[in-house]
Amino acid sequence: MSRASQTSAVTDPVTDAGSVTGTARRAKEAAAALAPLPRTARDGALLAIADALVARTDEIVTANAADVAKARAAGIPESTVDRLTLTPERVAAIASDVREVVALPDPVGEVVRGSTLPNGLELRQVRVPLGVVGIVYEARPNVTVDAAVLCLKSGNAVLLRGSSSAYASNTALVAVLRDAVAAAGLPADAVQLVPGESRDSVKELMRARGLVDVLIPRGGAALIRAVVEESTVPVIETGTGNCHVYVDGRADLDTAVEILVNSKAQRPSVCNSAETVLVHADIADAFLPRALTALTEAGVTVHGDEAWVRAGAAEGVKVVPATDEDWETEYLSYDIAAAVVPSLDAAVAHIRRWTSGHTEAIVTSDTAAARRFVSLVDSTAVMVNASTRFTDGGQFGFGAEIGISTQKLHARGPMGLPELTSTKYVVTGEGHVRD
Amino acid sequence: MSRASQTSAVTDPVTDAGSVTGTARRAKEAAAALAPLPRTARDGALLAIADALVARTDEIVTANAADVAKARAAGIPESTVDRLTLTPERVAAIASDVREVVALPDPVGEVVRGSTLPNGLELRQVRVPLGVVGIVYEARPNVTVDAAVLCLKSGNAVLLRGSSSAYASNTALVAVLRDAVAAAGLPADAVQLVPGESRDSVKELMRARGLVDVLIPRGGAALIRAVVEESTVPVIETGTGNCHVYVDGRADLDTAVEILVNSKAQRPSVCNSAETVLVHADIADAFLPRALTALTEAGVTVHGDEAWVRAGAAEGVKVVPATDEDWETEYLSYDIAAAVVPSLDAAVAHIRRWTSGHTEAIVTSDTAAARRFVSLVDSTAVMVNASTRFTDGGQFGFGAEIGISTQKLHARGPMGLPELTSTKYVVTGEGHVRD
Repeated sequence: MSRASQTSAVTDPVTDAGSVTGTARRAKEAAAALAPLPRTARDGALLAIADALVARTDEIVTANAADVAKARAAGIPESTVDRLTLTPERVAAIASDVREVVALPDPVGEVVRGSTLPNGLELRQVRVPLGVVGIVYEARPNVTVDAAVLCLKSGNAVLLRGSSSAYASNTALVAVLRDAVAAAGLPADAVQLVPGESRDSVKELMRARGLVDVLIPRGGAALIRAVVEESTVPVIETGTGNCHVYVDGRADLDTAVEILVNSKAQRPSVCNSAETVLVHADIADAFLPRALTALTEAGVTVHGDEAWVRAGAAEGVKVVPATDEDWETEYLSYDIAAAVVPSLDAAVAHIRRWTSGHTEAIVTSDTAAARRFVSLVDSTAVMVNASTRFTDGGQFGFGAEIGISTQKLHARGPMGLPELTSTKYVVTGEGHVRD
Repeated sequence: MSRASQTSAVTDPVTDAGSVTGTARRAKEAAAALAPLPRTARDGALLAIADALVARTDEIVTANAADVAKARAAGIPESTVDRLTLTPERVAAIASDVREVVALPDPVGEVVRGSTLPNGLELRQVRVPLGVVGIVYEARPNVTVDAAVLCLKSGNAVLLRGSSSAYASNTALVAVLRDAVAAAGLPADAVQLVPGESRDSVKELMRARGLVDVLIPRGGAALIRAVVEESTVPVIETGTGNCHVYVDGRADLDTAVEILVNSKAQRPSVCNSAETVLVHADIADAFLPRALTALTEAGVTVHGDEAWVRAGAAEGVKVVPATDEDWETEYLSYDIAAAVVPSLDAAVAHIRRWTSGHTEAIVTSDTAAARRFVSLVDSTAVMVNASTRFTDGGQFGFGAEIGISTQKLHARGPMGLPELTSTKYVVTGEGHVRD
């Protein structure tokens, strides 16, 4: 019997306590109570959370140790275990991040646009919370606090559905969060863990249309695809990054090498790292040898087209022949696909065909090429003479980030607090009617 | 054999001409060609459309006459036939509306936000077209031109899936639009009619994820629900309006009667007309008799709770006893549900339970009540001392409207040209890499 079915076995058929739908219903009620609260009330809850995380560190670390032991026993790679691990120092760092969110501007109540209409009606479009935000994520327990705090700051109730490998940690963290929220006078149900560890609980969450306002999946491509395909709750697609660096025919070679290596190797496991490099034929003879040397030094394996394989042979560097699978793959490792293209437009065509729409960079000293690349590439972010690694809420100065949207509706790119809101129109008259 | 299966029988398996997917693929190519075009090119195409509609009026009216004859033969109500009918005058009016769209500000290229980051990177968030917009709509052929023109103005390719009852009219109109677009030097495939008249073609459209960027259903609640439930393409939900007027305990009676009657009866068939009136108990004795008289004079049937039924009996006006179905129904007719509530909060609770989230109005002279109602009601638009009928892109001064979104993501309320765009981040450096 799985843990999930044990969970559903304790669901009370009358109160629906323990069911995902019941959880969502309570979240909707909490959201209604949160929406009209002023900033001070929400910030007060966040400060209470920061204090409680520090005060109850032992409890959190003990719960986490159980997850870590289970992960080690299951033979999970040490890098993943490290991402799962909470130490007192890490808990303190999480609490400190919470205090930084308190200091961010309040998105709720911002007047996005407004005017007095010719008939005297006063029109205001005002930011309001979305309502109930569901987050489905993997591994890292710090996301539990992070997501909850950003949702509360923006006036939303949150439903957290973390990885089963972090279930004990998340349970402990959410207990601390709920106590702190309640102590600050806000409804505890503004923060809830989705009950159950099986895929069924995610399915139930995806069908809670009318109770959950948006679902944000954060994690691997398979998770995101499943949520996008099956959810009747609106979804914000995040994260997958098959990012490209295009080295134009008129690029400074040193700059190009530096941007390429930084885009690929500065932190290969994240979504804004580069997965493919495209090089204009005019510059290939000069650039490929230097790029191969620098990539090899950085520990990167090149999966190249014929031109790259030939250049590799000349330099004594092994280049793996690339297939269509390489153009398509988000390696998230020290691998890069590489091709030579006859023109900027050919680079754009390659990108349009294979990109996940995250981030593409051009390296060029030619203003016309930069302008054309920016206008033709249809991705979340286009970098001109800068590393793909800059697509990030922190780097963009948003102060916080709930994820990076790769879709076009609602939010595109790093999502800060404003992206966790909707708007409503408030129209004030003095007995106005239509003719 | 249905017309739809005839259509799919002529689908060429290699070119996929005639299939919905093939149409969507060509739309995506057209969108890529449209995106980098400057305003003058798009406006030129719109002017060419306006001219062509006038020049080819005969052709359009002749095709429309066939639809009208078919509708009459099928015994369709004369009011629906009227909505279907195109006369030379109506075609001229449509062409004139197109010229007004030309004059609207260009949303594409607008810098939504921008800054220079501490490291010197220049960050700009720029409006870009969504790409391919699918519109599924009913009856009126003027929507064909309207939707196409708003999409082109905002740099999008459009897939039009109108009602089968307007198939001949839409075919003629789209032929005119495509010729004009091509004559102006833009790709004709920026405007396409979705082939096939059966529900299957809508289903195929809803599954064209990756080709179609957004689907906007415009029409009855059943159509919208089906699209929302089944589509893997992102949807913007429009239109359903179960709107409320709340008459507070401190309301001017004349103002309240005028706003109520205008909200209900000025044009009952549209989504922003009121379907329920809620009256504070403190004012019920004074208000109900006056409201009943005014509503009856306007030809409105009241479906009321006990208090309203009693008031009706006293006034000699027949009030139909209301059931839960009445609170839920979008009548779109000369009917209104009516209840007396003990408090503003009870009115809000009723609204939160039954509303479709379109528009709610409060009539009050009490600033605290107005403020509380605005903050607690979670709908697209909240009117203070104004008719619900003002929720409209034209009334709001947007100059055009593709529909009224009742969802929270991306766009909420009347959608003008900016709501038909997404954004991308353009980040410009001089060799910037991350540490």
